[in-house]
Amino acid sequence: MANKSEARQKKILVTGFDPFDGQKVNPASQAVFKLPDEISGAAVIKLEVPTVFGRAAQVVREAIIKEQPDCVLCVGQAGGRACLTPELVAINYDDAGVPDNAGQQPVEQVIQADGQAAYFTQFPVKKLVSAIRKAGVPAKVSTTAGTFVCNHLMYQVQYLREQEFPQLKAGFIHVPFVPEQVTRRPNSPSMALATIVKGLEAAIAVIVEN
Amino acid sequence: MANKSEARQKKILVTGFDPFDGQKVNPASQAVFKLPDEISGAAVIKLEVPTVFGRAAQVVREAIIKEQPDCVLCVGQAGGRACLTPELVAINYDDAGVPDNAGQQPVEQVIQADGQAAYFTQFPVKKLVSAIRKAGVPAKVSTTAGTFVCNHLMYQVQYLREQEFPQLKAGFIHVPFVPEQVTRRPNSPSMALATIVKGLEAAIAVIVEN
Amino acid sequence: MANKSEARQKKILVTGFDPFDGQKVNPASQAVFKLPDEISGAAVIKLEVPTVFGRAAQVVREAIIKEQPDCVLCVGQAGGRACLTPELVAINYDDAGVPDNAGQQPVEQVIQADGQAAYFTQFPVKKLVSAIRKAGVPAKVSTTAGTFVCNHLMYQVQYLREQEFPQLKAGFIHVPFVPEQVTRRPNSPSMALATIVKGLEAAIAVIVEN
Amino acid sequence: MANKSEARQKKILVTGFDPFDGQKVNPASQAVFKLPDEISGAAVIKLEVPTVFGRAAQVVREAIIKEQPDCVLCVGQAGGRACLTPELVAINYDDAGVPDNAGQQPVEQVIQADGQAAYFTQFPVKKLVSAIRKAGVPAKVSTTAGTFVCNHLMYQVQYLREQEFPQLKAGFIHVPFVPEQVTRRPNSPSMALATIVKGLEAAIAVIVEN
Repeated sequence: MANKSEARQKKILVTGFDPFDGQKVNPASQAVFKLPDEISGAAVIKLEVPTVFGRAAQVVREAIIKEQPDCVLCVGQAGGRACLTPELVAINYDDAGVPDNAGQQPVEQVIQADGQAAYFTQFPVKKLVSAIRKAGVPAKVSTTAGTFVCNHLMYQVQYLREQEFPQLKAGFIHVPFVPEQVTRRPNSPSMALATIVKGLEAAIAVIVEN
Repeated sequence: MANKSEARQKKILVTGFDPFDGQKVNPASQAVFKLPDEISGAAVIKLEVPTVFGRAAQVVREAIIKEQPDCVLCVGQAGGRACLTPELVAINYDDAGVPDNAGQQPVEQVIQADGQAAYFTQFPVKKLVSAIRKAGVPAKVSTTAGTFVCNHLMYQVQYLREQEFPQLKAGFIHVPFVPEQVTRRPNSPSMALATIVKGLEAAIAVIVEN
Repeated sequence: MANKSEARQKKILVTGFDPFDGQKVNPASQAVFKLPDEISGAAVIKLEVPTVFGRAAQVVREAIIKEQPDCVLCVGQAGGRACLTPELVAINYDDAGVPDNAGQQPVEQVIQADGQAAYFTQFPVKKLVSAIRKAGVPAKVSTTAGTFVCNHLMYQVQYLREQEFPQLKAGFIHVPFVPEQVTRRPNSPSMALATIVKGLEAAIAVIVEN
Repeated sequence: MANKSEARQKKILVTGFDPFDGQKVNPASQAVFKLPDEISGAAVIKLEVPTVFGRAAQVVREAIIKEQPDCVLCVGQAGGRACLTPELVAINYDDAGVPDNAGQQPVEQVIQADGQAAYFTQFPVKKLVSAIRKAGVPAKVSTTAGTFVCNHLMYQVQYLREQEFPQLKAGFIHVPFVPEQVTRRPNSPSMALATIVKGLEAAIAVIVEN
């Protein structure tokens, strides 16, 4: 276990989207920047990505080239969900109910003409859920990342992996609204930022130890 | 405004129930004991009450006699709600879906034969909601405290007020599950303890300033 | 059982509100007018009432005077609920989130200055729920009729009973949206009109047999 | 438009699952067998399929060979959903939370080792949704068919199409519980069988006209 190649510290790139759809905050990027710089011995590189079809993937690709991470975890907001949801799969399909932050609103579009219909994450989603719950945070596996920029980025990172970075492991976790976003939508579930951060830490520990 | 009688510090008694129905914690009592000892200049007296029909009210009555508070705020858990809910009204009706902590399970019972059909709170519930929201915490007015020990205690305190303590102002706030309680019920909304405490503080500030 | 006084046929007045808040239909009045003219031997008198504070109660009062019913069942729409909900209690409190059909929007108003804080229904709500379920229709007891015209009318009929018609038995059942109302709100529960009618019939059978 | 090749009547095979997980009925098969035998000029062939991994697909394959349909629409129950949901995509992944009707409970299994990660339906799901809504029935596109036998069958039919029946168009619609299934789960949405049938008819009209 102590040979030279293992002496290199593992590295995980964790991305969070900027606010979109008129929101002032995005709990995804807020949570990402509250993560510690090291989890289970791995270096945690944090990156905010624009909520923009296409551009989001370019920004992540540049960071992968620069940082050479072992894993990429993208984090996004899923308003209306009550718990953390590691995503199982991303599909080759953009369909935006609202414009992205560059005003784009693709309808029923293929993301990559030569990409697969879908890509599964390399992360063990059930283990992630167990670890998040053990940390006291509600979680369940999700089988849809939607059809907006979240699914888009999850798909694009997998496509990049297939095309350029075959060693990479990648995946996505959706997080709920924070309470501040839903003070006037009192029936909408939310989760405190500190709870989200705790859950993400537990998930990242599993990711970097696998 | 600066006469002697006003020199006395205002006092609010805040109660929270102990765990019931197989739960290990009750966010109500947990939150109550995390409140500061003074809010907006008023002394905050904290009390855990048993989740027991009848006994809950006796414990609060003894504390009222001992502490002579200006206000009594009772706090209880409403599993499944996503926000803080100041209660408008308590009804003269016990009907327990599960046993209380003494094994009692009243069915369609009148609480006080000579009590009113219902009592409204003396607290300005809409102002409470506004203040809680301003603190960044989701809230809405509730028009039913249910038919379990929460409604029972809210009713009983109002009955005591009518019978013995006419100067008292009293009311009730329901709080959601904390995340730890619903890790395996991932569709159930929850709220972090710190968020609950922040919301209760904002509500208490309004109560003691009115 | 066959004496003269019992020779008179029982009579139940069943009311339903007209559409409000921009809706084209109100499943309450639609369902009421689809009821048979006789249920369990009792005559069923059907009446549409305006969704208007005050006026709704006058219309029902006139019908009570004219028809001399044994029972009055008022039916209203509770958008967002998934099942039929017999109401336990009405409170002395008007607070309208939207204007009624006359443009009135009372805020935190007492309905009757000399009325009780609340009135309980004379109907056996749990038996109603059992009978509705036995007919294959989801139901549960509700402990709040809200603070709009539904609660208002339920309260007012009880107040009339107390003041003028002490023999009367009265109560309220809320019904869900029908599917046509929520085609574009696909997460909102709804219930087919035929299902609502079947559930109301089962409830009315219990009411007139008690 | 009246040439010989078009003289042949279009044919759609519509399948519904049998009851599973302790339920006495399955609204999917109930609804399928209430469909008319002809919709928009196309013959409607109805088939009940067992809720069994593997076997469900064999039964449908045999029916495709026998009936030579132009389209295959599979219908399944999605308890908890409030509306009809045409499915966009099926994924190569079985993961059963409960046993199927043969006692099988696959965990994180690939369905077809040489199959694609996912297959998109050939049906225009947004047009289906529009047509269902126009018929007065709530609907929305779903981007996940789950990981139980429903997704399995949708995936398998697409795989069969790829391998054996390239002319085929195929897809899946999930339907809610019927009211009889949730009388004691009153917060669960449901939909009357007649409403489900009306919605399926509207969808099938679009499918066979495209």
